[in-house]
Amino acid sequence: MPNIVLHYFDVKALGESIRLLLTYGGLEFVDHRVDEKDWESVKPSMPFGQMPVLEIDGKQYAQSVAIARYLGKKFKINGENIEEEFEIDQNVDYLNSIRDEAAVVHYDIEEKDRERKYNEMKEKFLLMIKKLDEIIRQNNGHIAAGKLTWGDFVFAGSFDYLKMLLRMPDLEKQYPSFRQVIDAVHEDFRVKDYSMRSPKTEY
Amino acid sequence: MPNIVLHYFDVKALGESIRLLLTYGGLEFVDHRVDEKDWESVKPSMPFGQMPVLEIDGKQYAQSVAIARYLGKKFKINGENIEEEFEIDQNVDYLNSIRDEAAVVHYDIEEKDRERKYNEMKEKFLLMIKKLDEIIRQNNGHIAAGKLTWGDFVFAGSFDYLKMLLRMPDLEKQYPSFRQVIDAVHEDFRVKDYSMRSPKTEY
Repeated sequence: MPNIVLHYFDVKALGESIRLLLTYGGLEFVDHRVDEKDWESVKPSMPFGQMPVLEIDGKQYAQSVAIARYLGKKFKINGENIEEEFEIDQNVDYLNSIRDEAAVVHYDIEEKDRERKYNEMKEKFLLMIKKLDEIIRQNNGHIAAGKLTWGDFVFAGSFDYLKMLLRMPDLEKQYPSFRQVIDAVHEDFRVKDYSMRSPKTEY
Repeated sequence: MPNIVLHYFDVKALGESIRLLLTYGGLEFVDHRVDEKDWESVKPSMPFGQMPVLEIDGKQYAQSVAIARYLGKKFKINGENIEEEFEIDQNVDYLNSIRDEAAVVHYDIEEKDRERKYNEMKEKFLLMIKKLDEIIRQNNGHIAAGKLTWGDFVFAGSFDYLKMLLRMPDLEKQYPSFRQVIDAVHEDFRVKDYSMRSPKTEY
């Protein structure tokens, strides 16, 4: 077995999809959860001074979406041809563009502006979410290609983070398609088991 | 020949890498440059209400990085194996993360805050640019895999936009490696010819 370590903070956010994918692939890994207070000392050892970073036998892999796509190919839950691969990439990028726009507001340096900016953006967020729901319904409860792919793991792993950023804690009640993607990922017994025993964090 | 149309604004920004890639691949395309004043009427016909959108025989492709990766595979300037493909994805995502951080400041809803926020972020931007230079030097003047890939087209196509967002108009003078990537893309005679006759825009 290769020696695998995932370095990330003690949250799901951008790291959980990688944890879920490694679990799905049956690869054991050290789930190294870096405490916020230790981050400055850990940072210089990370390729871009960012996490998550996946380490496989000493080789470092950075950038969460690139890692998820890579693991998807390793475990054969990627597209069957370049058209399908494109479709997954496109829809994952769209999903992440929603999160990015919400993050800009949530992490605005000017704390006092966050509330007002959120209200200015809310209508746009709702439209983007509605479009995402349409995409998933067109794909039988998946992000793309009408079947289980690494894109579904990106969705399932980052969903709580997306809800927090969007301030929409009941999103999957309003859009049952979102619950379908999460359920599809958890049909795998290893993933299901992992999610029961993994550390509980808010997002 | 397939019927190809690229829909984008009359700028390079996120669309130029696609124009350069289509040119490199020897595919003729209609370069549909949408005037800002017509955007609201065009918007509903775009899959995510965003551009660039590439249309090949009526099929629409959205999300600029996903399109560039797709064309890279079509024209065989992608990775040779999943490790190389990962490396391109990772480094392109890093490049784009610099642009994203700069864009957050440049497009801040509060115009009056942009100047101050830029000054607060400038040191971070410089560190990220330095890291990007290191990566390109390690890859013989390329974004990844030590050779010409679609990642170099993403760099070359969006470089003027990156410079504008970063407010660093002389970036390639300070970092000759950046000029190397642009030159590598323009070694192809079709790309060179295209760049000479294409509409001149600031970014």
